Amino acid sequence: MIVADFSIIPMGTGTSAAGYVSAVHDLLKEAGVKFVPGPLSTSLEAENFEQIFDVVEKANKRLAGMGVQRMITTVRIDFRLDKEISIESKLQAVKKT
Amino acid sequence: MIVADFSIIPMGTGTSAAGYVSAVHDLLKEAGVKFVPGPLSTSLEAENFEQIFDVVEKANKRLAGMGVQRMITTVRIDFRLDKEISIESKLQAVKKT
Amino acid sequence: MIVADFSIIPMGTGTSAAGYVSAVHDLLKEAGVKFVPGPLSTSLEAENFEQIFDVVEKANKRLAGMGVQRMITTVRIDFRLDKEISIESKLQAVKKT
Amino acid sequence: MIVADFSIIPMGTGTSAAGYVSAVHDLLKEAGVKFVPGPLSTSLEAENFEQIFDVVEKANKRLAGMGVQRMITTVRIDFRLDKEISIESKLQAVKKT
Repeated sequence: MIVADFSIIPMGTGTSAAGYVSAVHDLLKEAGVKFVPGPLSTSLEAENFEQIFDVVEKANKRLAGMGVQRMITTVRIDFRLDKEISIESKLQAVKKT
Repeated sequence: MIVADFSIIPMGTGTSAAGYVSAVHDLLKEAGVKFVPGPLSTSLEAENFEQIFDVVEKANKRLAGMGVQRMITTVRIDFRLDKEISIESKLQAVKKT
Repeated sequence: MIVADFSIIPMGTGTSAAGYVSAVHDLLKEAGVKFVPGPLSTSLEAENFEQIFDVVEKANKRLAGMGVQRMITTVRIDFRLDKEISIESKLQAVKKT
Repeated sequence: MIVADFSIIPMGTGTSAAGYVSAVHDLLKEAGVKFVPGPLSTSLEAENFEQIFDVVEKANKRLAGMGVQRMITTVRIDFRLDKEISIESKLQAVKKT
C-alpha cells in the first residue's frame, strides 16, 4: 500500500474552502479510496501510484467544474518497499510513541 | 489561533522514523503545544508564529542531538484573519462535509 | 501548460542525494519533459497531469531500482485555467517584481 | 548555512499572486537575505532558523497588511550538519549531474 496526503488550495475564490473539500471527499468516496481527513490535508491509501494520481487529477477537474480558475495542489507520497504500510499502521506507529 | 502541520524527514539514518517522531512528540508535550499526529505529518495549533517556529527549531535540534546529520522539514501554516480557527474547528468543518 | 515542482527524499541511504537527483534528471531528459533544477526541488512543465504523474512514478521506481527502500515525494502543481502559463512566464512574472 | 524555500498562497483574493510575490521580494531585500526566485517558490539561505522564520512571519504580516485575509505558507528547510551548504553549492551539485 502507498500512503499519501494531499490538499488543493483554490485561488481566486473566497477564504473558505469547505465546499471544495466536501466535493473532494465525495469524489474519494465514489472512487472507493480509503481516506482520513486532517486539519490541513487529506490522507489516503492506495494500491499504486495510478490510484493516487487519478483522484488528484479528478479532484482538480471537479474544482475546475465548480468554477475555480486556479488551484495549487500539494501531494506527498510515502513509497516504502521494506515494509507493508497503511494509514492505520502509520497512525499506530506514531500513537505508540 | 494559527493551525500548522509539519514533518521532519531524517536522511542518512534508517528507513524508520518512529524513534524520531516519538522524540518530537515528547518535545511538543514538554512545550505544552496542542498537537494531533497524522499518518504523514503532525498538526499543531499555536497562539502565534513564534510558538510554531520555536518547536520546529527545537525539533530539528533534538534530532541533531540524536545523531541525525541531515533532515528536511516541511511546515505548512494556515494563517487566517477573517475567522477564529483551531485544529478542532477545522476537523469539524471537514467532517461536516 | 501545467507547471509543477517535485522532490524525492530518499530515506535509509546516506545524507547526499546527488546521485539520485542525477538519475531523476536523466529520466526527465529521456521523457522529453522541460525542467529547471532548483536548490530544493525540480520544476517542470507539462501538457497535462498524466505527464507529471508519469515522471514522478518513474522517478520513484528508478530510485527503487537503485536500492532506495523508502522515499518521500512532494509534488506541487499549479493548475491554472484563466491564463496560459509556463516555467518561463512564471519566472518572468516574479523577476519583473 | 541553512537553505530553505517557501511560498505563500493567498486565498480570497484574485488568481494572480504577482503583487504579493513582489512585496515578499522587497521584504527579503530589506532584510538582507539572499534569495533566488523559482517558478513556484522562493529559495533563500540563512545563517540560522531565526532568520528564516523572521522573514516568513514578516511576509505573512505584510500580506495581511495588503488585505489578504487568509494565506497558506509552505516552508521547507534543509538542515545539514555534515557539510556546509548554500543555494549556490546546491545548484552546482544538481547542475553537475
